Amino acid sequence: MSAQVDKPTQILAEFLAELKFEDLPVEVVSRTEDLFLDWFGSALAGKKARQIQILEQFAETMGPADGASEIFVSRRRSSPYFAALVNAASSHYAEQDDVHNGSVFHPGTVVFPAVVAAAQQLGSSGRDVIVAAVAGYEAGIRIGESLGCSHYKIFHTTGTAGTLAAAAGVARLLAVDGERMLHALGSAGTQAAGLWEFLRDAADSKQLHTAKAAADGLLSAYIARDGFVGAQRIIEGEQGMAAGMSKDADPNMLVDRLGTRWAIGETSFKFHASCRHTHPAADALLELMSKYKIRADEIDEVLARVHRGAIDVLGPVTDPQTVHQAKFSMGFVLAMIALKGRAGIEEFNETALRDPAIRSFSQKVKMILDDEVDRAYPKRWLGRVEVVTRDGRRLKMQIDTPKGDPGNTLSRGELEDKAIRLAMFQGGATREEMQDVIARVWRLRDEPNLKNFLMKT
Amino acid sequence: MSAQVDKPTQILAEFLAELKFEDLPVEVVSRTEDLFLDWFGSALAGKKARQIQILEQFAETMGPADGASEIFVSRRRSSPYFAALVNAASSHYAEQDDVHNGSVFHPGTVVFPAVVAAAQQLGSSGRDVIVAAVAGYEAGIRIGESLGCSHYKIFHTTGTAGTLAAAAGVARLLAVDGERMLHALGSAGTQAAGLWEFLRDAADSKQLHTAKAAADGLLSAYIARDGFVGAQRIIEGEQGMAAGMSKDADPNMLVDRLGTRWAIGETSFKFHASCRHTHPAADALLELMSKYKIRADEIDEVLARVHRGAIDVLGPVTDPQTVHQAKFSMGFVLAMIALKGRAGIEEFNETALRDPAIRSFSQKVKMILDDEVDRAYPKRWLGRVEVVTRDGRRLKMQIDTPKGDPGNTLSRGELEDKAIRLAMFQGGATREEMQDVIARVWRLRDEPNLKNFLMKT
Repeated sequence: MSAQVDKPTQILAEFLAELKFEDLPVEVVSRTEDLFLDWFGSALAGKKARQIQILEQFAETMGPADGASEIFVSRRRSSPYFAALVNAASSHYAEQDDVHNGSVFHPGTVVFPAVVAAAQQLGSSGRDVIVAAVAGYEAGIRIGESLGCSHYKIFHTTGTAGTLAAAAGVARLLAVDGERMLHALGSAGTQAAGLWEFLRDAADSKQLHTAKAAADGLLSAYIARDGFVGAQRIIEGEQGMAAGMSKDADPNMLVDRLGTRWAIGETSFKFHASCRHTHPAADALLELMSKYKIRADEIDEVLARVHRGAIDVLGPVTDPQTVHQAKFSMGFVLAMIALKGRAGIEEFNETALRDPAIRSFSQKVKMILDDEVDRAYPKRWLGRVEVVTRDGRRLKMQIDTPKGDPGNTLSRGELEDKAIRLAMFQGGATREEMQDVIARVWRLRDEPNLKNFLMKT
Repeated sequence: MSAQVDKPTQILAEFLAELKFEDLPVEVVSRTEDLFLDWFGSALAGKKARQIQILEQFAETMGPADGASEIFVSRRRSSPYFAALVNAASSHYAEQDDVHNGSVFHPGTVVFPAVVAAAQQLGSSGRDVIVAAVAGYEAGIRIGESLGCSHYKIFHTTGTAGTLAAAAGVARLLAVDGERMLHALGSAGTQAAGLWEFLRDAADSKQLHTAKAAADGLLSAYIARDGFVGAQRIIEGEQGMAAGMSKDADPNMLVDRLGTRWAIGETSFKFHASCRHTHPAADALLELMSKYKIRADEIDEVLARVHRGAIDVLGPVTDPQTVHQAKFSMGFVLAMIALKGRAGIEEFNETALRDPAIRSFSQKVKMILDDEVDRAYPKRWLGRVEVVTRDGRRLKMQIDTPKGDPGNTLSRGELEDKAIRLAMFQGGATREEMQDVIARVWRLRDEPNLKNFLMKT
């Protein structure tokens, strides 16, 4: 490892505070608009979910009954804190929100809810929101990378690094200086939390993690603006995040090519509505069945060769009890692919959860750690499956760039279609409403403000 | 180590959910009233502190302008969430709130703000509040103990275990069953956070930790009541708190003598207004100077023999820049003791911070790790000091039970005096108001509700 940079969090904070729209390459601006729309669809997809409704009820009990910021699933307004809380929970419900491979971090679901809720209060322009979102992505991705794979083994990076990402985005929107940006990161880092333990019990914590990351990050930024002092070396310090929550941290990643590498451009869109760790194998199985013209009932066994992170996250889910938990079962997801040819938002439902054919197929799926796949991870997520057919053939398929990765991305048309599907999935918005939203997002860089997305009065 | 209990968090949750007033020995009830008053004084002591005012401003921006729950420092009401947030921040400002030795955890500053804020909304009786507070203390202390010394080395246990303590207290007040109590602990544990890194920079995070522990714990309890599912083994599970945040965890401590050991009764009152790690040495120095009739100007050197935890927490503070940071400097605290004979709330101020005599004396103080003291810790906090006098004598003193520990406790008269001093310190309440509060707290077990403590309309 190269020598450690002195005060990397401070250097990062100064970069974030000074980031300007003019610094952004045009493809970064476009990509930010793409990611905004992709997030917006996800934010509506959790409308009827029990855990989202409970958090919305909490917001109703504890927050103001009106305010500047829209809570999209309930079509009401409250303060930015509660809008961030509920919108961040709902946008992580469908498991269709974006992901950055190298940091194993979902930036959109924590950055946009916080930034948009604050922007609606502050009257910020679309341009300001783009800069703030880029700040959030650049910070969160580098922090996730710096915390390393050992962190992700126990901690949900989207909850932990996500708190700092949301703080960075909102603090940029508040136009604080580098010193107060550092305070915002300090206060966010000392609140950073989120454990994978919930996966074993089909618990609702995943949405709680994004809700709290967005809301706590927003809190950190607002209080930093007002002079609340945070630790200056919250990530790399002797009693900081890396010391407490990682065994392989690399603080140098915090300042990796600031201003020349745009990590936001490396972010992937999710094509399947399941945990990203299932996607490479899902793509490979789809391709295998298509190439060899195999039907599900001809398959005796599926072997998914995966990286260790996939085993850590998916391994505990041996018998999914809820639709959400099914998205974290490699067996269930590959069964959907084999039997339905898709694992989209509409396919994951209670009927599928109890479908004996899916249950039976999922027993045929095994995960095994693969050295090549594991070495490439987390930078590249390789798909490797082997299928044993009923007639005794052993077929293999490899996919090097899963659908949705920057090298195999979704077009704007595909993004529009996905966002509309997500929005309509539980009646979050109509097709017509979404067409308005889409038009507005495609001209985000010229929008005077972000008010009244779904509520027109 | 003995064999591990199966599902200790679940056993703890069932105990907490089933706890009744009739189960509590009368001395536990009295002690809870003592701790309530001690907390109430602390909650007023942060009235004019910058960091508390910033959090109150955040509560004003993000929370409802009215509600059932009093924010004591600002004499206004809001929702329980924001009352818990601000009251918990302010009650940890003066460093005079209670502490449990074995868990190195400050229970009062996280449990009471959450429980009282919820009780004011729910209309709970004084008796219900006592039971809920006991539940919070019993949970938080055992969780802090179970996480071990390695946890405290990096994490501020009052922030981490404190989130679960607040959740347990509020969930008991909400009268949830054992299953939902377990969900409350699961949601709280996956939000548990708080790093010591802030100490190096005189940052404001300590009050942020208590604020968030109380508020997040309250959130966890409310959403658990409404059906939000948490992890069932959030502490002992393979990807739970112990796995991620401790190297010497002992999950068996979670269920240590439930119903027969009352950990709340082991809680100490703080006599000096500084970090508890300075107290044993402060008591020993006071005793030494009194016994040998030594004045400060006769002292050339002070050696404080301490446990490792004291070095972890106080070691980074080599040159205190704020009044709050001075409370974490062994040199500064012993200088106050030597020069002023006290280290109380009134003594810690800007004048003292810049006093050259105090600064100069503090350079004479050294901490050294002592094997005997370290072996006794954290169960017992032994005070051992050695003084070298100008005329060359080497004097020693040992204190085995610091002032405020259960074996050397404060009387109700001393508690009243302390609470009034804290309340009046920054104009939080008048002596007359506090006399009303005191009378009400001494009959807490018979109070019909906890409404209108300082606001009468």
